[in-house]
Amino acid sequence: MNGTLLGIGVGPGDPELLTLKALRLMNACDVLAWPAPESGQGLAHQIVEPHLKAGDQEHLPLRLPISSDPFPAQQAYDEAAEKLSTRLSAGKSVGVLCEGDPMFYGSFSYLFARLSHNFVTEVIPGVSSPMACASASGWMLASKNEPFMVLPGPMDLEVLRKKLEMAGSYALMKVGRHFKKIQKLLEEMHLAQEASYVEHASLPSQRVLKLHQVDPQNVPYFSMILVRRHA
Amino acid sequence: MNGTLLGIGVGPGDPELLTLKALRLMNACDVLAWPAPESGQGLAHQIVEPHLKAGDQEHLPLRLPISSDPFPAQQAYDEAAEKLSTRLSAGKSVGVLCEGDPMFYGSFSYLFARLSHNFVTEVIPGVSSPMACASASGWMLASKNEPFMVLPGPMDLEVLRKKLEMAGSYALMKVGRHFKKIQKLLEEMHLAQEASYVEHASLPSQRVLKLHQVDPQNVPYFSMILVRRHA
Repeated sequence: MNGTLLGIGVGPGDPELLTLKALRLMNACDVLAWPAPESGQGLAHQIVEPHLKAGDQEHLPLRLPISSDPFPAQQAYDEAAEKLSTRLSAGKSVGVLCEGDPMFYGSFSYLFARLSHNFVTEVIPGVSSPMACASASGWMLASKNEPFMVLPGPMDLEVLRKKLEMAGSYALMKVGRHFKKIQKLLEEMHLAQEASYVEHASLPSQRVLKLHQVDPQNVPYFSMILVRRHA
Repeated sequence: MNGTLLGIGVGPGDPELLTLKALRLMNACDVLAWPAPESGQGLAHQIVEPHLKAGDQEHLPLRLPISSDPFPAQQAYDEAAEKLSTRLSAGKSVGVLCEGDPMFYGSFSYLFARLSHNFVTEVIPGVSSPMACASASGWMLASKNEPFMVLPGPMDLEVLRKKLEMAGSYALMKVGRHFKKIQKLLEEMHLAQEASYVEHASLPSQRVLKLHQVDPQNVPYFSMILVRRHA
């Protein structure tokens, strides 16, 4: 009988923002896998490290391109899915750790698309980065009947401009090297002054800044700008 | 010295989707408050009930209007804030339990607005309902550079239509008695067939349906429709 595939959301960075369910299941599965950079272990592993138990669980770093810009090489995901598939077919339960939430801009989507048709798949939701950034900066993400929109920073400038013309609350994700483009746009649209910038939310390296305080040369991939256009 | 105010996200419903941090802090604070309906304890309390410890912690249900449609009576929030303020001024730490995430369409926003200027306030992010609904239905909420938008169901029909004209991924929240309006709109826009309906995500009463399977007369407030317009 095939094993079950588990997509386990581990939250934005603070190991204490793991859910009780994620903690239970990550230690219960036969194989624990996580997206990792070419060398080293990466953020997902860093988040759960304090919770890992010694035992005979197989640990399997999946060497995947973390950034979605440029889009991940399909081959790396094919290979990773093949590794997981072998273990699932052997009846082993496989947990895949996912930064934040597995279904929300996660690299898990590429594995889910390849494996969920063949194997029973369960997804454990996690705390997402917009919520962690909102908590960090005391920023009300959305309330009442306000629309809330998440816009990835790599989006085309004119598309971003068009979206931001509507009243509502916005989280601009994966800002990174797109910071200057976004800052200029928000200034033109008179939205920059109120905006809140957060990097590494919930980690010890967390920083909350106004846009003009940010050094555009040093904006990490895991950074976000929260902004609101009032009706 | 004043006590600290804690906004504690307790997740979408499953008591196991509480974070380790929420669990630690809800039991550590002197006063534990939660939004409750006119009678009974409500969902936030139900979620943490298995985790409550016997002790001398004061338990304080706040009788607040839960629905944001019609907008909550300001007086009820004034009175609740006054109750919390009295305890904070007496040096007590006060935790307020919040369904989902405190900064994401939560009733905590009304208390945060009234109290965070006078008292040190810490917010603990929680697992939000869109992520729980996505997990429940195996629905990829957003990936790559796709925009993601949350639209409250009570929004005006023509505003909803305008938003849904753009390519992207959508979560329609607080569907409840607006189900028929939304279903008709999605049918007109040829978006109904692919859409996923989820109610009571992560609770034992969770249901995942296609739109045509839903009885419009029995749609709870805590229901959501996930839909995608392809580019």
